[in-house]
Amino acid sequence: MNITHIEHLGIAVRSIDACLPYYEHVLGLKCYNIEIVEDQKVKTAFFKVGQTKIELLEPTSEDSTIAKFIEKKGEGIHHIAFAVPSVQDALDEVSSKGVQLIDKAPRPGAEGLNIAFLHPKSTCGVLTELCM
Amino acid sequence: MNITHIEHLGIAVRSIDACLPYYEHVLGLKCYNIEIVEDQKVKTAFFKVGQTKIELLEPTSEDSTIAKFIEKKGEGIHHIAFAVPSVQDALDEVSSKGVQLIDKAPRPGAEGLNIAFLHPKSTCGVLTELCM
Repeated sequence: MNITHIEHLGIAVRSIDACLPYYEHVLGLKCYNIEIVEDQKVKTAFFKVGQTKIELLEPTSEDSTIAKFIEKKGEGIHHIAFAVPSVQDALDEVSSKGVQLIDKAPRPGAEGLNIAFLHPKSTCGVLTELCM
Repeated sequence: MNITHIEHLGIAVRSIDACLPYYEHVLGLKCYNIEIVEDQKVKTAFFKVGQTKIELLEPTSEDSTIAKFIEKKGEGIHHIAFAVPSVQDALDEVSSKGVQLIDKAPRPGAEGLNIAFLHPKSTCGVLTELCM
């Protein structure tokens, strides 16, 4: 697989509004986009750090996977997203190597990306997204 | 604070040996260094992805903070490390803004870096390292 860089890190937070002062005024990053992703039941806020985006994820519903993550593990880094030239090709490749997939085909994510998740059981515990 | 990029991501794993096949043969990354950091009671393995390193952290002792993290939260992303031009200047700046510090002064980390951690209570739940 030809991973070019870490496209983004997804970070689960209870409240984007409560975290914006830390990201903007302490770390000095600039929030350039806030977006609701309906099918994932999250509100997202984006910052750029070098090649990589930080994507804050706030649950918009109690049955959001992000709400469940926070309930179980607390706020923190939720997933890592690797940029690949073709998500479908990468899925086919890792599947042939025995990796368990959450998404068998790419689907639309925030910021117009095509995304697919691998199962953390196959990735040493890290929820892993492939995207382009 | 002038963060240039994400220097590395620390990922807590039970066994580096068990995870190497995933990182090398599935993701196609190359482990270029394995190092013991005695004072943190961890064995580390490094991979490069674009600007950012992935640092696997395996506890070498049951009282390692990484062992405690895994016991509490399971394997997964443990911390994010931002590259800054001066760790001491960055610590002084964030401290003046009310951020709680784990390290009041930089100390030696893996790969010859100067590192210091901010407390996750002040960083929306993400254990955060500053380094150069």
